[in-house]
Amino acid sequence: MSKVQVAVLGATGMIGQRFVQLLEGHPWFEMEGLYASERSEGKRLGEVNKVKDHAFMQETLSRRIEQIDIAKISKGCRVAFSGLPSDIAKDYEAKLSEAGVAVFSNAASHRMREDVPIIIPEVNSEHLEIVRTQPTYAKGGFIVTNANCSTTGLAAPLKAIQGAFGLEQVVVSTYQAVSGAGYPGVPSLDILGNVVPHIKGEEEKMEAEAVKILGTYRDGRIIDAGFQILASCARVPVHDGHLEALVVRTAKDATAEEYAKAMREFRGEPQHLELPTAPKVPIIVREEADRPQPLWDVNAGEPARAKGMAVTVGRVRKKDKYLKFFLLSHNTIRGGAGGSVINAELAYAKRMLR
Amino acid sequence: MSKVQVAVLGATGMIGQRFVQLLEGHPWFEMEGLYASERSEGKRLGEVNKVKDHAFMQETLSRRIEQIDIAKISKGCRVAFSGLPSDIAKDYEAKLSEAGVAVFSNAASHRMREDVPIIIPEVNSEHLEIVRTQPTYAKGGFIVTNANCSTTGLAAPLKAIQGAFGLEQVVVSTYQAVSGAGYPGVPSLDILGNVVPHIKGEEEKMEAEAVKILGTYRDGRIIDAGFQILASCARVPVHDGHLEALVVRTAKDATAEEYAKAMREFRGEPQHLELPTAPKVPIIVREEADRPQPLWDVNAGEPARAKGMAVTVGRVRKKDKYLKFFLLSHNTIRGGAGGSVINAELAYAKRMLR
Amino acid sequence: MSKVQVAVLGATGMIGQRFVQLLEGHPWFEMEGLYASERSEGKRLGEVNKVKDHAFMQETLSRRIEQIDIAKISKGCRVAFSGLPSDIAKDYEAKLSEAGVAVFSNAASHRMREDVPIIIPEVNSEHLEIVRTQPTYAKGGFIVTNANCSTTGLAAPLKAIQGAFGLEQVVVSTYQAVSGAGYPGVPSLDILGNVVPHIKGEEEKMEAEAVKILGTYRDGRIIDAGFQILASCARVPVHDGHLEALVVRTAKDATAEEYAKAMREFRGEPQHLELPTAPKVPIIVREEADRPQPLWDVNAGEPARAKGMAVTVGRVRKKDKYLKFFLLSHNTIRGGAGGSVINAELAYAKRMLR
Amino acid sequence: MSKVQVAVLGATGMIGQRFVQLLEGHPWFEMEGLYASERSEGKRLGEVNKVKDHAFMQETLSRRIEQIDIAKISKGCRVAFSGLPSDIAKDYEAKLSEAGVAVFSNAASHRMREDVPIIIPEVNSEHLEIVRTQPTYAKGGFIVTNANCSTTGLAAPLKAIQGAFGLEQVVVSTYQAVSGAGYPGVPSLDILGNVVPHIKGEEEKMEAEAVKILGTYRDGRIIDAGFQILASCARVPVHDGHLEALVVRTAKDATAEEYAKAMREFRGEPQHLELPTAPKVPIIVREEADRPQPLWDVNAGEPARAKGMAVTVGRVRKKDKYLKFFLLSHNTIRGGAGGSVINAELAYAKRMLR
Repeated sequence: MSKVQVAVLGATGMIGQRFVQLLEGHPWFEMEGLYASERSEGKRLGEVNKVKDHAFMQETLSRRIEQIDIAKISKGCRVAFSGLPSDIAKDYEAKLSEAGVAVFSNAASHRMREDVPIIIPEVNSEHLEIVRTQPTYAKGGFIVTNANCSTTGLAAPLKAIQGAFGLEQVVVSTYQAVSGAGYPGVPSLDILGNVVPHIKGEEEKMEAEAVKILGTYRDGRIIDAGFQILASCARVPVHDGHLEALVVRTAKDATAEEYAKAMREFRGEPQHLELPTAPKVPIIVREEADRPQPLWDVNAGEPARAKGMAVTVGRVRKKDKYLKFFLLSHNTIRGGAGGSVINAELAYAKRMLR
Repeated sequence: MSKVQVAVLGATGMIGQRFVQLLEGHPWFEMEGLYASERSEGKRLGEVNKVKDHAFMQETLSRRIEQIDIAKISKGCRVAFSGLPSDIAKDYEAKLSEAGVAVFSNAASHRMREDVPIIIPEVNSEHLEIVRTQPTYAKGGFIVTNANCSTTGLAAPLKAIQGAFGLEQVVVSTYQAVSGAGYPGVPSLDILGNVVPHIKGEEEKMEAEAVKILGTYRDGRIIDAGFQILASCARVPVHDGHLEALVVRTAKDATAEEYAKAMREFRGEPQHLELPTAPKVPIIVREEADRPQPLWDVNAGEPARAKGMAVTVGRVRKKDKYLKFFLLSHNTIRGGAGGSVINAELAYAKRMLR
Repeated sequence: MSKVQVAVLGATGMIGQRFVQLLEGHPWFEMEGLYASERSEGKRLGEVNKVKDHAFMQETLSRRIEQIDIAKISKGCRVAFSGLPSDIAKDYEAKLSEAGVAVFSNAASHRMREDVPIIIPEVNSEHLEIVRTQPTYAKGGFIVTNANCSTTGLAAPLKAIQGAFGLEQVVVSTYQAVSGAGYPGVPSLDILGNVVPHIKGEEEKMEAEAVKILGTYRDGRIIDAGFQILASCARVPVHDGHLEALVVRTAKDATAEEYAKAMREFRGEPQHLELPTAPKVPIIVREEADRPQPLWDVNAGEPARAKGMAVTVGRVRKKDKYLKFFLLSHNTIRGGAGGSVINAELAYAKRMLR
Repeated sequence: MSKVQVAVLGATGMIGQRFVQLLEGHPWFEMEGLYASERSEGKRLGEVNKVKDHAFMQETLSRRIEQIDIAKISKGCRVAFSGLPSDIAKDYEAKLSEAGVAVFSNAASHRMREDVPIIIPEVNSEHLEIVRTQPTYAKGGFIVTNANCSTTGLAAPLKAIQGAFGLEQVVVSTYQAVSGAGYPGVPSLDILGNVVPHIKGEEEKMEAEAVKILGTYRDGRIIDAGFQILASCARVPVHDGHLEALVVRTAKDATAEEYAKAMREFRGEPQHLELPTAPKVPIIVREEADRPQPLWDVNAGEPARAKGMAVTVGRVRKKDKYLKFFLLSHNTIRGGAGGSVINAELAYAKRMLR
């Protein structure tokens, strides 16, 4: 069976380069072309490479980058992965879906549209149905988004807890890596030996996206989940991996061990469908006193293709009636390109890529 | 009027060195001697100096360090400032108070004793009365502690809010500097480009100390404040300055601006008494989108003697019925040596140093 | 006597902001205006401030920035301090000198012109004479440059050694701070936990400038010094302060102590003239095994106005017939704005500002 | 053919853990046991693990650590790999060789003994012959050392140049990673945002070892090479990878391209013998303007087993008659455990392990 031809948009950015890394040797998808703005046209990926997983990228360093051309892409590809910046993503992604291309986007532009789902397939694979209500769906074109990098880490652990105990309140503080701001992104003068307690729009995104992702799909609509969420976001001098401190109140009280067990044993649709990029264990619960840590746990996930796709949870503990824990996920893999790739795998498995 | 002779215990540590810095040229106190463990005896302070505020320390670098000798200290000093590690602090501090010395301690050893107050004079100067119930008080000896470095930053902002609106729930996540662990402290291999979501005993200390400090002094006892507090503590690669993300629910709802105003206009006993180390404005509320930051705000506080004694608050905002803000305070000045010094100033002003 | 009115060009950059810091309360100069590109016009300095020496800057944060206007500047100021980027410095500085303004520039644009001196007044104050050969000098306008930030640190120690023992060969490797690249400058993704062994054009500048600065002024010309210099430049994750490792062969052999003594006792014209920004001791030689270090020594220099103006030297040692040592200097003060300010003070003291 | 049983000494340290990583699945060697000081006895490797290459180490995390027992080791093992600290290495390694064990040591203790070679097999595999002069050789016991981590990077590039053009002078400055100091090693307070221009004994080791390694083996003795070497060593806030800036004068002058070619095409005995841990290309010469960098190049080396075993060279350029370049090598793999492993492979291939 021949592979699905796919395009990578924004191939010169942090997320775009992760797309190339994750699609290299993919069993279902084949990169037809790498696309970016006029500025990068004609360059080789190697010239603009900013992802340090050297060995992984070696083979693909010589791929050439083309200017984004809707007609050409829609002719050659059924799928486009978008790592475009939000300001230009909106227009390009809309045009591609009109041209019959299934767009899996990492940009925020269309996330809050009523007919566009934010998919994290472990959590809300049934939301994918809503793309059938998009006007372009008949032509084979539609838009699926993945969540913001800081929301992504939350989703599976909260789903596991929601399923077992019901969710009432979530307070989350983030320790976010600099790669989340892209390249060049955060100036070193701002972050060396410092913490910046502000990431523009991030708290609002987390709060809005979390209740949508964990919401209920019914009668062609997504109804936001009913829990309260309060987010505080800060940038720390770390390369990759968003750490988050969680305080959660559930409807039904439980012990720390019961909460940990619910997360440890949680499995979702990607695990049942054995999607190629799905980690066997989506939530890894560590017992050590001082984990998860970005340096140690950012690439968690097995098998090899799922490296960086698992969420690591640690320090699961109780205070009064509240559950406290820390979680870590890879912001440009699970919370970026990998999130879009696994969404496309879900759509493929559900035969929605025509 | 002659100055009060004081001893510095643990003079070779991070806190001890800050004591020396803050007592240099003090209008009321004069360093009689610097004391530390046998290991450091005979060394000069300059040989062990690890505080980088070079200009400040220059004059005192040649002071010699002696071994701790209770008899000698109690003969020459009415006051001892203790930067001793907790394990040895317990014994030494008890012996000194028995020998008639007023001990102002930065160690945790005696903090939870019923007759020992944890004083942050802006917040609970009236708790100082409780030292009169200590068995050694008749001889002039007693123990006063200051709070853990991460609790200290919280205290004044929470007091301001408590006073104006009543406190129901506090959720706090910390971004703590490496100097909080002393020297050598945190190995660079653990923290370079990393965050460690665990500091032994820290969350428990914050949770227990905060309700004691903000509690009520009545009939010779301190009654813990009634609000709930949930803390998550993490270490970040920053030299000095503990940043904290706060989510607070008050008894009486208010707007973000009302909360900010209550903190901005807050003044305490040290401001009324014009204590030498008291900052004129104890809580500095910043309007910028991205403050406070350790690099910029750690030394906040005026006049010069109060550098590092003010707490900086920023991003005061509302979500649902919750107040959210960030705060920053200097962990080895306000949350360390400076905390003890201002406590001694309070006791001096109240004529309790006999 | 009224002060000399001065303009600061490029006031929104790293160097421009240091100019403001250093000129605040200057005994001879008074800031008439702050100028920058159109983009910053109308902003206040506080809005663009990126220098963390908060206390110092407080008073000046409200100064307004104007667009660069040659006619207006030349009407109101006899002196302009330029922190402009090299590409636009060339033209603006030339026009200002034509308009009769004495320009003290931190940009590289005019440094290698035959009639423009690179002045480090401790080293080559006599080179200032060459400005009399500039065509605009009759009108009172001329251009004086200071050296590249990495060359500056070298100059005084090499001069001290050259004077006492003669210089034959200098091999220098640098460990340069990120502030040397301005703001936003070095992306954090490139330098966190990393070293970048390349700074565009830096090695060439060091090699060309060092022999010019240490050259001989004779008959209206500067003749390059005859020693060989070989530079390797790298960027390290440090905020401020360029550290350099030196290996030097002198004409006359000496002991490590003799070399150290020559540097320690070295004094130059600024010390004799007691220029306001001159450090009393221009080269501070440390005896400790592990100094100089950026964190500890970057602000060396006394009195207060000379903070960051001294060079710190350490680990003076011999191997075979070679002298080895490390040096550190503040790259945006001594190697930036402070270098221009002390040059203007020299010109003022020599009555060349008419 | 059964594998050679080997012991790992000092298994809880940085180097010891790298030994375990590199010996996992080795085609010729099998770990019989992990040994360390009394303090670690009975612990599992996972409890003390400080090497972040998580995936690699997973399988071995449950291995138990035993106390060092010469009799037990010599009974079960023909080979011991030593990652012991220098102070205790001297005695243990001597005893093991007396007990008939071939010791491949990373410690400095025996390096300068006349009958102990410092082997970097690409450079001086013939020096291995000298172990035949060790008094214990008849019993099968001997000691082979690898070089200090900062010397190791130098060796192959200098050998390539020495062979083609002759070496006269080498000036080297280092930018060394914190893992070189072991764990806990460098305190974060000393190195965050800082550079420390001193590593005890390091410059002396580099200077003494380099001329021994590149020396000539003749008549049972090693005669030091005749070139001059001048080293300056500094620690930078980098996890792994020592970067070095080189300035070299050769006997025969050549162009930058000729120097680069000599290094690029250099192959040594490990490449000819196809030793398991040998990189196919021992010196990787990069053409980019800004390489090598620790973050990008530290793990250079192919195939998978040789990851971190190649030296990366970049910025090969000329100034006057001097060659300048930067090099990078992994300090705990190539410059640590990997260096000992490849030495043991060489001895195995030469049938010296009896």
